[in-house]
Amino acid sequence: MTSDEEPGAVLPWNEAWELLRGSRFGRLAVSVANQPDIFPLNFIATTDKIWIRTNPGTKLAEMAINPLVALECDEVGDGEAWSIVVKGTARAVESQTEIDAADLLHLESWTRTRKWTYVEITPASVDGRKFVLGGEPDGD
Amino acid sequence: MTSDEEPGAVLPWNEAWELLRGSRFGRLAVSVANQPDIFPLNFIATTDKIWIRTNPGTKLAEMAINPLVALECDEVGDGEAWSIVVKGTARAVESQTEIDAADLLHLESWTRTRKWTYVEITPASVDGRKFVLGGEPDGD
Repeated sequence: MTSDEEPGAVLPWNEAWELLRGSRFGRLAVSVANQPDIFPLNFIATTDKIWIRTNPGTKLAEMAINPLVALECDEVGDGEAWSIVVKGTARAVESQTEIDAADLLHLESWTRTRKWTYVEITPASVDGRKFVLGGEPDGD
Repeated sequence: MTSDEEPGAVLPWNEAWELLRGSRFGRLAVSVANQPDIFPLNFIATTDKIWIRTNPGTKLAEMAINPLVALECDEVGDGEAWSIVVKGTARAVESQTEIDAADLLHLESWTRTRKWTYVEITPASVDGRKFVLGGEPDGD
């Protein structure tokens, strides 16, 4: 992916991770039989992983078939915007030791639903971009 | 998908479309070789279609291989949030008649880039949900 193909200035790796770690809300894209789907959700980023919680259902079912996911978060401000896209592999956390460790993250859900399964996303790539907002340039 | 699987109250079809038509910013999920990807972008929804504009590049290239896409937009407010997810098929608009018609939509991009190709998304499903935000319920 080059800047000719996608607009926006590429953010340095550490800046992208910092924005990720400061975010709690994003969207997870999954794909089954080549049909993409998107789920808005709460997440938390640690040093090198991303954690979500969910209840057993569609999302988890889809990730069991295809663990490749993309997670996006963004913020649109007055004159600029940023967006981070993580591509990686999702895995349901099953061992009690890992669940106990995940509990310590205090990953809260904004909705009033108890969601008992942790899912860990191991990033393969983290792509952060910053956009300057404003009108389009005039044509020549 | 039932409400047991995904949280949130399902919005009526017309309410979901109304929120879509009032939105100008969302995220497009595509999938190539089962790897989902997400792109933040501007869009406009008409009566029964969604339009985006892009420059020839990654997104378009991926949609030519797999035209199945998902588009999401959401809004997080004080006590509640909503999210609309459209699944559908993308098609680059190529005839001049269609381009002229698309021009009339005044689909603006927030970034200072001229993007010359219109892409039309024909929805196969529109799923709107409303979420009540707040702390999690206490466990029993």
